[in-house]
Amino acid sequence: MTAKLYCFGESGNAYKCALAMTLADMPWQPVFVDFFRGETRTLEFRKLNPMGEVPVLVDGAETLSQSGMILDYIVGQTGQLGGRTKAEARQVWRWVLWDNQRLSGTVGTCRYLMNFAAKDRVPEGVVPFLQARLNSAYTILNDHLAARPWVAGGDGPTVADLACAGYLYYPEPWGFSRSDWPQIDRWLDRIAALRGWRHPYELMPGNALDLA
Amino acid sequence: MTAKLYCFGESGNAYKCALAMTLADMPWQPVFVDFFRGETRTLEFRKLNPMGEVPVLVDGAETLSQSGMILDYIVGQTGQLGGRTKAEARQVWRWVLWDNQRLSGTVGTCRYLMNFAAKDRVPEGVVPFLQARLNSAYTILNDHLAARPWVAGGDGPTVADLACAGYLYYPEPWGFSRSDWPQIDRWLDRIAALRGWRHPYELMPGNALDLA
Repeated sequence: MTAKLYCFGESGNAYKCALAMTLADMPWQPVFVDFFRGETRTLEFRKLNPMGEVPVLVDGAETLSQSGMILDYIVGQTGQLGGRTKAEARQVWRWVLWDNQRLSGTVGTCRYLMNFAAKDRVPEGVVPFLQARLNSAYTILNDHLAARPWVAGGDGPTVADLACAGYLYYPEPWGFSRSDWPQIDRWLDRIAALRGWRHPYELMPGNALDLA
Repeated sequence: MTAKLYCFGESGNAYKCALAMTLADMPWQPVFVDFFRGETRTLEFRKLNPMGEVPVLVDGAETLSQSGMILDYIVGQTGQLGGRTKAEARQVWRWVLWDNQRLSGTVGTCRYLMNFAAKDRVPEGVVPFLQARLNSAYTILNDHLAARPWVAGGDGPTVADLACAGYLYYPEPWGFSRSDWPQIDRWLDRIAALRGWRHPYELMPGNALDLA
């Protein structure tokens, strides 16, 4: 049975899961969710995920939401990308949580406001406020990567790398420039050099360029 | 050995962990972190947690950060509050992740801006923007609780309840009124009726009332 990932190209949280399955050779297929036409607010989608969010993974009898849960499931199913020791596995989940709390959610909001929201619905002051918060998150990640090639500290990539990197490959501007963060820049290249890696707009249907 | 929780009373993320250990009868003691005088930005604290955040739990040789990780550790150490079935355990982590991504971080920021930040450092549109996002999170949680007494869906409380509720007991205003969310209101009373429950300002040193 091939797992189905409810996703759309612009969703960095969906991308983390799509990329994890791709790198771990777990068969999957995308089911396009038309987020920009309001599909996640429909009753039908809410039946699938009452949290109203993408991604959702349906694999046989399992229906999972929250990218961190789905990443955990992929690690369990494939035995890959979860860290090789118990200590590394713990670092994996520490950084997945950190990303959820500090990085991805704020990048996603900032990028949405700068690229996809109606201009009159973006209150002044919000974007600079979010960008200042993001700068402190980039600093923590950049400093962390100065001492180790992969986020969880082992000798190979884990889902913690995919969680933290998921939003950082998108081309739309949100105030992030890779050249300002050399350790993050090299690490993004390191991930992109993994066998099977693909850009979010190549891995999932839907592309912000189509919306323009 | 008694676990040490680096914390301060105003931190809802620290409160989740303090309350979990208290309810699960795991011995612990608080170590006060003087957040409002900049202690989390000191080199000494950054050695303990390079993420620069409270809480940190030190238990013997283990040093853990990120409240979600610490809650997982407490469940592992005590065998309590983690859900009774595999399906319930999965719901626990789904909601802990949801809380991290959608609820606690935004409540924490909103409450900080409205109560603790210098007024001239709060950009005008930010608080209403955060409050609108929170209203959609409260709606999801309130609807979810209409059908079940505890967040993870089992017949008793789990760390998912403590994660989602952690910030909601604080007295300082951030635009949340329990009477607007009757299911959340009753659930907060249900948690507060558990044997051993205590308010954050009773469980940890440091109290916003001292700052006034």
